[in-house]
Amino acid sequence: MNVSVSVPSFLNLRPEAEQAPTSGIVDVANYGRGREGLIPLWVGEGHLPTPSFICDAATRSLAAGETFYTYQRGIPELRQAIARYHEKVYRKPFDPERFFVTSGGMPAIQMAVRMVAGPGDEILIPTPAWPNFGGAITVSGARPVGVPMTIDARGWHLDFERLEQAITPATRAVVINSPANPTGWTASHEDLRTVLDMARRHGLWIIADEIYSRFVYDPALTIDGCTPSFRDVSTPEDRILFVQTFSKNWAMTGWRLGWLEASPALGQIIENLVQYQTSGTPVFVQRAGIAAIEQGEDFLAHQIDNARRGREIVSRLTETGLVELPPPSGAFYAFFKIRGATNSKEIAIRLIDEANVGLAPGSAFSAAGEGYLRLCYARKAEDLEEAVRRIAAALPHLAR
Amino acid sequence: MNVSVSVPSFLNLRPEAEQAPTSGIVDVANYGRGREGLIPLWVGEGHLPTPSFICDAATRSLAAGETFYTYQRGIPELRQAIARYHEKVYRKPFDPERFFVTSGGMPAIQMAVRMVAGPGDEILIPTPAWPNFGGAITVSGARPVGVPMTIDARGWHLDFERLEQAITPATRAVVINSPANPTGWTASHEDLRTVLDMARRHGLWIIADEIYSRFVYDPALTIDGCTPSFRDVSTPEDRILFVQTFSKNWAMTGWRLGWLEASPALGQIIENLVQYQTSGTPVFVQRAGIAAIEQGEDFLAHQIDNARRGREIVSRLTETGLVELPPPSGAFYAFFKIRGATNSKEIAIRLIDEANVGLAPGSAFSAAGEGYLRLCYARKAEDLEEAVRRIAAALPHLAR
Repeated sequence: MNVSVSVPSFLNLRPEAEQAPTSGIVDVANYGRGREGLIPLWVGEGHLPTPSFICDAATRSLAAGETFYTYQRGIPELRQAIARYHEKVYRKPFDPERFFVTSGGMPAIQMAVRMVAGPGDEILIPTPAWPNFGGAITVSGARPVGVPMTIDARGWHLDFERLEQAITPATRAVVINSPANPTGWTASHEDLRTVLDMARRHGLWIIADEIYSRFVYDPALTIDGCTPSFRDVSTPEDRILFVQTFSKNWAMTGWRLGWLEASPALGQIIENLVQYQTSGTPVFVQRAGIAAIEQGEDFLAHQIDNARRGREIVSRLTETGLVELPPPSGAFYAFFKIRGATNSKEIAIRLIDEANVGLAPGSAFSAAGEGYLRLCYARKAEDLEEAVRRIAAALPHLAR
Repeated sequence: MNVSVSVPSFLNLRPEAEQAPTSGIVDVANYGRGREGLIPLWVGEGHLPTPSFICDAATRSLAAGETFYTYQRGIPELRQAIARYHEKVYRKPFDPERFFVTSGGMPAIQMAVRMVAGPGDEILIPTPAWPNFGGAITVSGARPVGVPMTIDARGWHLDFERLEQAITPATRAVVINSPANPTGWTASHEDLRTVLDMARRHGLWIIADEIYSRFVYDPALTIDGCTPSFRDVSTPEDRILFVQTFSKNWAMTGWRLGWLEASPALGQIIENLVQYQTSGTPVFVQRAGIAAIEQGEDFLAHQIDNARRGREIVSRLTETGLVELPPPSGAFYAFFKIRGATNSKEIAIRLIDEANVGLAPGSAFSAAGEGYLRLCYARKAEDLEEAVRRIAAALPHLAR
């Protein structure tokens, strides 16, 4: 479903650029864009704008004239604030030199990939997976290798044997996204140790995306309001690159602010990669990030509560008896299968036409997602209730 | 002078990342950073913060809640405003679909390079040149090939014969930066036609950086306040990628806002590359861009006047008889040679220690720049006058 673009051959473009996949989510969203009354649940974004205490920090910075070039690694105050945030959440000391401010989570992923893989290399990704991992790997010239997860009534599981079997001499890294988009799979400490042990034995890097770590619903996977992390089981010598974003916790999707966490030994390389990628992130955006991370815990608690409520509303879809929806342990997506469905794009299109609800087709998340639909439940309760009603009403026509 | 970074080999990083060069400008700036009373003229940045009418547009957008994900190609209003700006400056129609908003000029360059070159490919760059072109090419896995320009009493010239001789079967593109950083060289229409003809014959792309086009001092190279452009001599079918930025015209260096101009046929590819690079540019930053481009002509005129005055102040260095400084036709840098100087980094360091003035060493702009120093004169007149006094006083000790 993620299709590469064809351009006139006289333009003679690089294959890495031509093969950059078009998002299968955007593809369906384009079909439904602008429909009157449509409830859009296809994107991983809440309904609230950024709270004013965060916006105000940016406004004050602009008024103070902070409009010049700045540090490629991020302003020291934000790097320190991020370190303090980690100390609070993970209950141990963190060196601010480990944190590199990026213009969103995506640039952090692009740099992580750039450091560890290129043409001739492979990176493993448990699937279904957020398509942008594969996209970033393709653009770098490396090959994303999807490794299907398994599913049973309790939910999705990482298939460690299958993952290890997928390793070849070309494998350089494995992407571990926990809690996972779109499946909600959340790794236990034992899962993380197993992956880390495998990575150590094979000399692989781990690209760790734990951006949904505060959105966790399974008490067995919750430590002080956070999921198990590679930070709990690894040493500073392990080859792990953590990618992070302000987008989800603090309703800052549009700000393009995130960070990369890595060994300080990589500092100069990351500084140089930032130089040739974005040449830094606006200071006034970074000031907003400091406000978010230092004063945003109440807002974040509200976001988590809202998602928890949304998760319950959406779980009612199972009452129809026509969908499979194992309760997601973390993140804020319901990834469900309609009985007998085989073409998720077709169903997503029909749900736009027949229910006026916008969902992401599972096929956008790799072949392992075919037959599924992804619904973002970090949304207003009324909208979710109405969406569930509409989907439930359409289901008898869609299921087989 | 641009050195690659060495990291512990067990980290097993990709060569494209390890070879990403450290800026030779930053290298010297780090030496002088924080010195009391130092006049910093090493970076290409004016002394004024962004004007308030531009900041206010961002503040209003934030207050209106424009904090969500947005179009990967840029918001339609900004793309239309950019098209109108081009129509005014270049006196012909422009399709808004040609313009793709980027998070600064640098991401535009990175995407342009990504589209046309990768491992095994070469891109030609007339030198001395802004080091970030070479950096972006190296990170993409391609090889930057510097082609030295020639210099005489009238200034720097593109050596067309040498440029054509540097073409190999691996050459994919040529970077043309006019007006040029650091030399001030500005292409005539004849120069541009010669390059275009060469590119057509060899099937090369042109990456055109005309970001300083409004900063022009030679009347023979000025058409309605703008330098000759590839837009004047090319057809829509020519393989040209224009990279642009809001940084210089509107004092917006810290905002990270620019654009890529390309054939609309490349639209979907560029959209996908943006997706995996930055996933778009904040809407509130784009609103500021609209204010700048639509209401910023008076401010820009002031910026140009200030640079013109700075250029005259700095030209007084030639009165010492100890420097060679052909008058720059465009941009806002004095690129001068101190008589007998061979090690520009050493001299830049001594100017920090002995004159408390920060200049960029010519060696940062390739081997062809060795022996030169770059001074940014888009600065406050008093600071430039004082800097010229200090440099002139130090020159007898530095020249040979």
